[in-house]
Amino acid sequence: MASGTTREEIIRKGAGLIHAQGFNATGIQQVLDAAGVPKGSFYFYFKSKEDFGLAVIDYFRDFSQAMADKYLNKDGSPPLQRLSGFFDAYTDLFTKMDLCRGCPIGNLMQEMSDLNATFRGKINEVYSGMQKGIEQLLGEARAGGYISDDTDPSQTAQFIINAWEGAIMHMKLVKDTKPLSVFKKMIFERILK
Amino acid sequence: MASGTTREEIIRKGAGLIHAQGFNATGIQQVLDAAGVPKGSFYFYFKSKEDFGLAVIDYFRDFSQAMADKYLNKDGSPPLQRLSGFFDAYTDLFTKMDLCRGCPIGNLMQEMSDLNATFRGKINEVYSGMQKGIEQLLGEARAGGYISDDTDPSQTAQFIINAWEGAIMHMKLVKDTKPLSVFKKMIFERILK
Repeated sequence: MASGTTREEIIRKGAGLIHAQGFNATGIQQVLDAAGVPKGSFYFYFKSKEDFGLAVIDYFRDFSQAMADKYLNKDGSPPLQRLSGFFDAYTDLFTKMDLCRGCPIGNLMQEMSDLNATFRGKINEVYSGMQKGIEQLLGEARAGGYISDDTDPSQTAQFIINAWEGAIMHMKLVKDTKPLSVFKKMIFERILK
Repeated sequence: MASGTTREEIIRKGAGLIHAQGFNATGIQQVLDAAGVPKGSFYFYFKSKEDFGLAVIDYFRDFSQAMADKYLNKDGSPPLQRLSGFFDAYTDLFTKMDLCRGCPIGNLMQEMSDLNATFRGKINEVYSGMQKGIEQLLGEARAGGYISDDTDPSQTAQFIINAWEGAIMHMKLVKDTKPLSVFKKMIFERILK
């Protein structure tokens, strides 16, 4: 494998482990074993475990951005239908993971916000980006008359994404998608009117 | 100290550490040091670290129940005013903790749901109790005509508490109470009408 590819493989396997276990519970050796990379080569690719963690957050951000591009930003269907499809696509993903793991960004927000200021800044950046995607869609929905004129796209997007993170957490707890469907019902019947 | 008191002190100090760091990052020795209890006495009070963790969850449940009794269940003021006061009381608590730590039950839900089925069951029990408190208040609000007849108290309570947990997580990230005030605005202006 070329260096670039090895680094990417370490990040990809590391992302899976961090998603499942958290950042602190994931050891460097475990990541290298999963990636099939010789012991001792970690510091060839990363300055530190923190540096590696930040690269993993970039990996999650790219995934999140791809989901937004595919479901939120596509043209052709009305904005609220796109938003609904976005939540459904994530629900399918969670179902494929047996309702474990949940949202990697939410997990890291919970675990790392008080422990590492660099992580906190980076996670905040990614989370703001996720919020921005929904905010733009709500702006479009308001301009198109799909939601009421007095809807504040920024605050509403923040509320929606936070409520979504909470619903995902509850889904992990009860191992049931019901919190996600209750979330959708409340958002579309009461918030986005 | 009597045995009962020593056990309670271990639980109290352990609860503080678990709230701040998570369950897995908190070592037994660190808890004993914080409680000023001699090394080696841990297994006199607890069968295992898991047994200790379950006692800490009971401690969090008792606190949560006391908050519900004080703010949600008290008589005299209209139900939605009590609900609003409940969220404000928690916001004050979080502010006193410098917007760190967040909700201990939410943290453990995120950290432990996939790792330990006994914890998951116990956390689910506590979280259901929290939801039940809000559900009863919403039932009362609906009967009193404070919210619309088509409000389902159970689903709405579930949505509210999940959205609240998500808002707390975001508060931890941005170190700002704004996610909590946006939450309140959306809940009282759009959900509870």
